[in-house]
Amino acid sequence: MSDQRRKIIIDCDPGHDDAVAIMLAARNPKLELLGITTVRGNQTLEKVTRNALNICQYLNIDVPVCKGLGEGIVRMSPPVEERVHGDSGLDGPVFAPLTKELDPRHAVDFIVETVMASDTPVTLVPTGPLSNIAMAIKKEPKILEKIEEIVLMGGAYQHGNVTPAAEFNIYADAEAAYVVFTCGRPVVMMGLDLTRQALCYPEVVERMSKVKTTAGKLFVDLMHFFCMTQKRVFGWAGGPLHDPTTIAYLIDPSCIETKEMYTEIDITGGPSHGRTNCDYFNLRTDVPKNSKVAVKLDVDKFWDIVEDNLKLYDAI
Amino acid sequence: MSDQRRKIIIDCDPGHDDAVAIMLAARNPKLELLGITTVRGNQTLEKVTRNALNICQYLNIDVPVCKGLGEGIVRMSPPVEERVHGDSGLDGPVFAPLTKELDPRHAVDFIVETVMASDTPVTLVPTGPLSNIAMAIKKEPKILEKIEEIVLMGGAYQHGNVTPAAEFNIYADAEAAYVVFTCGRPVVMMGLDLTRQALCYPEVVERMSKVKTTAGKLFVDLMHFFCMTQKRVFGWAGGPLHDPTTIAYLIDPSCIETKEMYTEIDITGGPSHGRTNCDYFNLRTDVPKNSKVAVKLDVDKFWDIVEDNLKLYDAI
Amino acid sequence: MSDQRRKIIIDCDPGHDDAVAIMLAARNPKLELLGITTVRGNQTLEKVTRNALNICQYLNIDVPVCKGLGEGIVRMSPPVEERVHGDSGLDGPVFAPLTKELDPRHAVDFIVETVMASDTPVTLVPTGPLSNIAMAIKKEPKILEKIEEIVLMGGAYQHGNVTPAAEFNIYADAEAAYVVFTCGRPVVMMGLDLTRQALCYPEVVERMSKVKTTAGKLFVDLMHFFCMTQKRVFGWAGGPLHDPTTIAYLIDPSCIETKEMYTEIDITGGPSHGRTNCDYFNLRTDVPKNSKVAVKLDVDKFWDIVEDNLKLYDAI
Amino acid sequence: MSDQRRKIIIDCDPGHDDAVAIMLAARNPKLELLGITTVRGNQTLEKVTRNALNICQYLNIDVPVCKGLGEGIVRMSPPVEERVHGDSGLDGPVFAPLTKELDPRHAVDFIVETVMASDTPVTLVPTGPLSNIAMAIKKEPKILEKIEEIVLMGGAYQHGNVTPAAEFNIYADAEAAYVVFTCGRPVVMMGLDLTRQALCYPEVVERMSKVKTTAGKLFVDLMHFFCMTQKRVFGWAGGPLHDPTTIAYLIDPSCIETKEMYTEIDITGGPSHGRTNCDYFNLRTDVPKNSKVAVKLDVDKFWDIVEDNLKLYDAI
Repeated sequence: MSDQRRKIIIDCDPGHDDAVAIMLAARNPKLELLGITTVRGNQTLEKVTRNALNICQYLNIDVPVCKGLGEGIVRMSPPVEERVHGDSGLDGPVFAPLTKELDPRHAVDFIVETVMASDTPVTLVPTGPLSNIAMAIKKEPKILEKIEEIVLMGGAYQHGNVTPAAEFNIYADAEAAYVVFTCGRPVVMMGLDLTRQALCYPEVVERMSKVKTTAGKLFVDLMHFFCMTQKRVFGWAGGPLHDPTTIAYLIDPSCIETKEMYTEIDITGGPSHGRTNCDYFNLRTDVPKNSKVAVKLDVDKFWDIVEDNLKLYDAI
Repeated sequence: MSDQRRKIIIDCDPGHDDAVAIMLAARNPKLELLGITTVRGNQTLEKVTRNALNICQYLNIDVPVCKGLGEGIVRMSPPVEERVHGDSGLDGPVFAPLTKELDPRHAVDFIVETVMASDTPVTLVPTGPLSNIAMAIKKEPKILEKIEEIVLMGGAYQHGNVTPAAEFNIYADAEAAYVVFTCGRPVVMMGLDLTRQALCYPEVVERMSKVKTTAGKLFVDLMHFFCMTQKRVFGWAGGPLHDPTTIAYLIDPSCIETKEMYTEIDITGGPSHGRTNCDYFNLRTDVPKNSKVAVKLDVDKFWDIVEDNLKLYDAI
Repeated sequence: MSDQRRKIIIDCDPGHDDAVAIMLAARNPKLELLGITTVRGNQTLEKVTRNALNICQYLNIDVPVCKGLGEGIVRMSPPVEERVHGDSGLDGPVFAPLTKELDPRHAVDFIVETVMASDTPVTLVPTGPLSNIAMAIKKEPKILEKIEEIVLMGGAYQHGNVTPAAEFNIYADAEAAYVVFTCGRPVVMMGLDLTRQALCYPEVVERMSKVKTTAGKLFVDLMHFFCMTQKRVFGWAGGPLHDPTTIAYLIDPSCIETKEMYTEIDITGGPSHGRTNCDYFNLRTDVPKNSKVAVKLDVDKFWDIVEDNLKLYDAI
Repeated sequence: MSDQRRKIIIDCDPGHDDAVAIMLAARNPKLELLGITTVRGNQTLEKVTRNALNICQYLNIDVPVCKGLGEGIVRMSPPVEERVHGDSGLDGPVFAPLTKELDPRHAVDFIVETVMASDTPVTLVPTGPLSNIAMAIKKEPKILEKIEEIVLMGGAYQHGNVTPAAEFNIYADAEAAYVVFTCGRPVVMMGLDLTRQALCYPEVVERMSKVKTTAGKLFVDLMHFFCMTQKRVFGWAGGPLHDPTTIAYLIDPSCIETKEMYTEIDITGGPSHGRTNCDYFNLRTDVPKNSKVAVKLDVDKFWDIVEDNLKLYDAI
């Protein structure tokens, strides 16, 4: 039974949308969540790690949580996304005192050891900057042949969100992204082009509020805050729920249309630093396609997946 | 009367779509075409200059045609766009032996002298690489205060067409584009985001074939070839008629929705070289907006403008 | 007779050392100075142009002086070198009211016309940023075959003087330098590596003070100020007399040892922007050598040349 | 007693000169060699690791040898320096069958654990690309406060040796160098400017051949090959003994004159990629000095140090 589940590690910086990604993954019968690793991004490493522990404790998710990199593998990190995710990085819900303990292993070592120890390939699911993944690949390149796929949230072939050229996760550690996109393993990229179709409007929150489980409640508490800040900061009625698209894709790939293309990361340090140059029109014939880039979301299917998976948690 | 017409200089590399831009401009009662300058781009400088002369002779357009730069102001130029525009750069129509003579002035000097000599501001309309415009600005910065606007075709805030990051006209002389976008005068950018909405389908050619003027015939002869190559090279049923959008905007700004934003040109020489990083979401609050970027075409109005202006030529 | 003199145009931004370069060139029987063009550099374009006129008037040098570019061909120029050259750009000497008139031609046009009109090849001698030279080459590439050599002051294969990587003249318009070093004509580069050997100590000023000519007096007045500022700003007893090395080389190449190498200009906009990467050790075997880079000055010969040429002026 | 010795870890890619660095360090009473870590550079990771083990076995040096990174932390590595160091990376000497075993810890973990476990600060001595050091710093930034100094061989403020701009060790992993030079700890840089003064002429080999110890013999066997290849490849009578200057400096700082300056690593990917832009003339007043850059070698003292330390090994 368990053999047929797809093994995944979520590498994240929760973050409201990371939290939803974890929710979708942890109980889904098609997935086996081997662990959660954390990386600085939406908030500081300390805060996102605490958030990951809180999420697991709240939802009774019994997997190791390992702390990773607190800054980019080369450059200092840009400021955290406090405007969107609040001071804690996961403002909104109220958590009980934290009792779940951090796994003592470094995220990079956890990834290397877990992938190497697995009898079947493991899929990495990064929803924050790619620092941990890149360092794991470079520290132990043997993991590459045991990585089935890297399904990540990041990048944009149209507009960035932190600079005109670049999306936050890639910009925050562009060199790490360069490592991931040149590592030779299949990369599936859920960029802003896709995630801006996953808008969480008040109607969605209303719908999920009828799911009377711990996950349903957490979703609502998170999204209430998230939608509010999206409105205040960007003026948008519904905020894009970026990270859960990765898990939705793993649960049902038919909900997201992808296109194979060559993607090159800009690490010049210039005005396009951190851009994912996705070759949408196949202009480059001199290089192999190294990524499947998400282009279209089946919005109905997506919210159905979210709802279905929220229902798998304990009733409240 | 003449005082109220908007004075323009078209700086171009004809090119099928440049030819249509000239057609729209030369007879329109709102515009006063002061001259045409040429620049290497779609084809070599010699060929595009010959094409500009042929267009003027064929349509009986009596303005100076001046030859400009045969390569970028800094780097060597990339290959010409022969696949799209054919060996002559304007394949399709058959022209009579050329009798119209080239104006002996260098395009850069013609621009400087004409702008300085004008009693009212002049609008520059570049539809090729920006080499001539940039050199004119740098050779005689005093023209800046006499430039009303620079309404150009080039760039993209989404996908490029020559690299994943960059559009041909900007890529072909990115440093020149850098000069134009930092010159302090208002720039209106008709990028691929807009011009990919100006698709010339067979129905359009059919419609224009009913305009029984020299311009109508030339349009049909040009578009027949152009649509054919767009189909063969890119697999598209209708090719984007890039350059005429500039003139359509000058004739009736209401046919094109623009958005004010800061645009920065990538001149790093890296993978995003030549990208127009347009700050669509106003992420940069530290810099003034230096461009109006076209976002939406009123397709019906656009083709009406084309048809109306083709009708202004001599009957055949 | 005149046929055998080497025709030169000095393109400069006087500047104390530019002034000395002009002095050495204007009366030397081996050289025919066709004109002087000016470019923003050590001071603003207005000031350096005024300085060039003052020098010519003072020394009775009857050649056209033409004003050129007031900023780089792509980027805005860095601040002028006021600390070294004073508020006027040529502080020290006192000049009579200026009567010599500026030639009305633009420096770029003067260079193009003069080179094209010459029956024999012309050597360009830029001692400031390369903006005029680059624009002339790009505006009329036909001048290339009529350029004998470009003997310039600029660059460094060791330490820069405006950034750790770059020398002022190249840094001030790196893209122009890129044009010059890739133009295909022979470039002789007098970089800081060489000019830092041309130190003007008080003994030198003392020696030249015995040359009782207008040029001797001007040299002393200039160097008195120049040495003083070098001492105050950099703490050096003797300042490097950069620009005259170009003319000394043309008068007697044996006074400067050069080495053929490939030189590549950094125009990335990064921390090495404006560096002249000179391939001193022939590491690049994939590219032809495009420059002769000066490595060693025969100091005695150099000062003899200076003295000899100061003597050619009118007695005072 | 032991408390007063300076604790060091040598991170290297032996390599003939790395081998000599190890020799100088392992028996010196002022130094306590805690371990040796290896990194791809002069040869592949497998080969340089084998070489490190061979050196330790041959000289009876009983410290852990740990294998590190086989490529750069971001980019693929450039080709190895086979021309200089031969097929094995340490051609010349003949070693007995290898019995010394590799320590199972990854170099990065060894560095982190050893530094964290030490009661006194540790000095890191990298003589190859900085991949291991950079990854250790980023994986566990807490080591920073326990690092006394990073005394490295790499860089050049004058000429590079792999490109005109860059020295091999920095070029091979420029991003790693960026991490090291921005880490906030004191960096002492033995660049080519210094190491090109440490020329191992035949006279030196002759002199050391009189040291009748295992180290003396190994030095001679190594240098015989090394000098031969330097002559064949570069045409030099004496090859620069780069890496041992780091240890000589630690043994007796008076043998090397350094100058405090700000050093910035070029990671643009452009023509100056991997350059160490050392601010020799203090042009940058906006940044703190982050390095002591070696400028002058006391050649006599240096060879005395080499000889003295070779004598500390077992007689043969």
